[in-house]
Amino acid sequence: MIHTTLRHPTADGVRRASRKIARILPYTPLLPVEINGVSLWAKAECLQPVGAFKIRGGWHRLSDLSDDVKTRGVVGVSSGNHAQGVAWAARKLGIQATIVMPSDAPRIKMDRVREMGADIVTYERLSENREEIAQALSEKTGATYVHAFGDPWVIEGQGSAGIEIAQQMEERIGQMPSRLVVCCGGGGLTAGLALACPDAEIVPVEPEGWDDVTRSLSSGEIQSVGDNPPPTACDALQTLATYPMNFDILKARSCVGVTVTEAEVRDAQRFAFARLRLVLEPGGAVALAAALAGKVTLDDRTAILLTGGNVDAEKFAKVLTSQD
Amino acid sequence: MIHTTLRHPTADGVRRASRKIARILPYTPLLPVEINGVSLWAKAECLQPVGAFKIRGGWHRLSDLSDDVKTRGVVGVSSGNHAQGVAWAARKLGIQATIVMPSDAPRIKMDRVREMGADIVTYERLSENREEIAQALSEKTGATYVHAFGDPWVIEGQGSAGIEIAQQMEERIGQMPSRLVVCCGGGGLTAGLALACPDAEIVPVEPEGWDDVTRSLSSGEIQSVGDNPPPTACDALQTLATYPMNFDILKARSCVGVTVTEAEVRDAQRFAFARLRLVLEPGGAVALAAALAGKVTLDDRTAILLTGGNVDAEKFAKVLTSQD
Repeated sequence: MIHTTLRHPTADGVRRASRKIARILPYTPLLPVEINGVSLWAKAECLQPVGAFKIRGGWHRLSDLSDDVKTRGVVGVSSGNHAQGVAWAARKLGIQATIVMPSDAPRIKMDRVREMGADIVTYERLSENREEIAQALSEKTGATYVHAFGDPWVIEGQGSAGIEIAQQMEERIGQMPSRLVVCCGGGGLTAGLALACPDAEIVPVEPEGWDDVTRSLSSGEIQSVGDNPPPTACDALQTLATYPMNFDILKARSCVGVTVTEAEVRDAQRFAFARLRLVLEPGGAVALAAALAGKVTLDDRTAILLTGGNVDAEKFAKVLTSQD
Repeated sequence: MIHTTLRHPTADGVRRASRKIARILPYTPLLPVEINGVSLWAKAECLQPVGAFKIRGGWHRLSDLSDDVKTRGVVGVSSGNHAQGVAWAARKLGIQATIVMPSDAPRIKMDRVREMGADIVTYERLSENREEIAQALSEKTGATYVHAFGDPWVIEGQGSAGIEIAQQMEERIGQMPSRLVVCCGGGGLTAGLALACPDAEIVPVEPEGWDDVTRSLSSGEIQSVGDNPPPTACDALQTLATYPMNFDILKARSCVGVTVTEAEVRDAQRFAFARLRLVLEPGGAVALAAALAGKVTLDDRTAILLTGGNVDAEKFAKVLTSQD
């Protein structure tokens, strides 16, 4: 494993990340929404400048690097949202960034990463090991490897979304969130939210066949996705296994995962389009999909995270005009 | 003319509307956006619960009615966004609402109005006089006619968006807006913003061929659209002429209007999709279209109003996949 655990992510770290992020990024809105007759809340992280919550972890991680380390650059691995988070932070801090991206990453994500001045190295998702490629790059140049989820700064950064939700909900209804429903790839956001909101139930949602975290939580040990995972439109959630750093936090909270089908994800994208006027990419719509499909208990203190909106126009148009 | 001018809209009225609206609706976000190399702001009114700013005027108007008047119901005329604003407020206040809508109104708008419990009466846009129909209904039942733009409460209500923008911009950069770029149908929002932000330049934007306000401002007298206005996708902006109540405010501010082409509107819808992850209907995208087309001076204190996001999925998909 490439990452070196320097420290554990902490709730204090999440609060510090939240203060740092509030200085440069406005709170994303907590929108009122009605689902299956229940009035609840949707946190629109797709409205971040890079179209996804990943900007939080990227900023917290890179802005904490020492000046000396910054000059050697950073390396990230990502299908596109963590890539944009890192590239955005790197540009703002004047750091050279290289991102290892699968060759089948959405075009819109690749274009944006390039636009922000990062270098892209592509790999074949099924035949190449992306972490080995990143590690080799890191060793060659001395660049800091910024893991997409197994990193205490990244977890704390993503968790800042939970601090915002708690504050926004308190302002609106004078109460704290009872439950956060959230997409889960490697578990960076999920673990961060667990630290941010110690009294809320955290519900990780995964696409069918990519339910390694759900199965890990159910068995009590980290599991990987199977050998031949099915195709999924949720490119942002195709993580093979979570890390102990993330898993331990979720396990300690007795989280129970939920899975959604590809059709349920498309339903959620259409709902967000028609009811919230938001563009959601498939991976950013899974939490909403679980709520709409009746797979999660909902109440007026539940917040659904809408985590990303970077999707190619042709694909989105196809979802809008299909009925399934 | 059907409306009775009881009073003039005022800046005090806008501030009062703003306080009333803040009690029931969260501020819509003021999103940072970069256009043609300039960093500026976009006010995402498409994120209102009805997908458009019209909820503001509807709420301010209906919530100010006396209990006795409320029992006799309200009547509105609208292609769909004012309709939803009125229907939303009526439902919340327990008022019976009837909306006169053109038979070619977007399906999504009709469905939502019906869903909120309002009755719909349709008319033929080109052969029937919608205001006469509304007036007849109002006379028959004693229902209060709520005009879409020529009403002091409606103007003040819409203006509350300007109070929010000023406050949000001050929080973010410590400055007041220099310029508000805004769609213009009948001029309700435009006039309201002029009252809300006395030191900002107000730039009304209209679709080509529906530029009655632009021509009125240029000639100094209220003009109507021509006899055979061209087809436009901007159903929300097909107003034949503004009212003195609106025009006088804009004229006193020496506003200069701008027009955009249908192709420029589609460009703006695609930009909002890819860069802001927002769904904009054509009429809600004209201000952005003017900015993108280089038709408006831009600076870091400019705010673009993104006013509505109610668009049928098939039409939106077609815009996304076309290049023109």
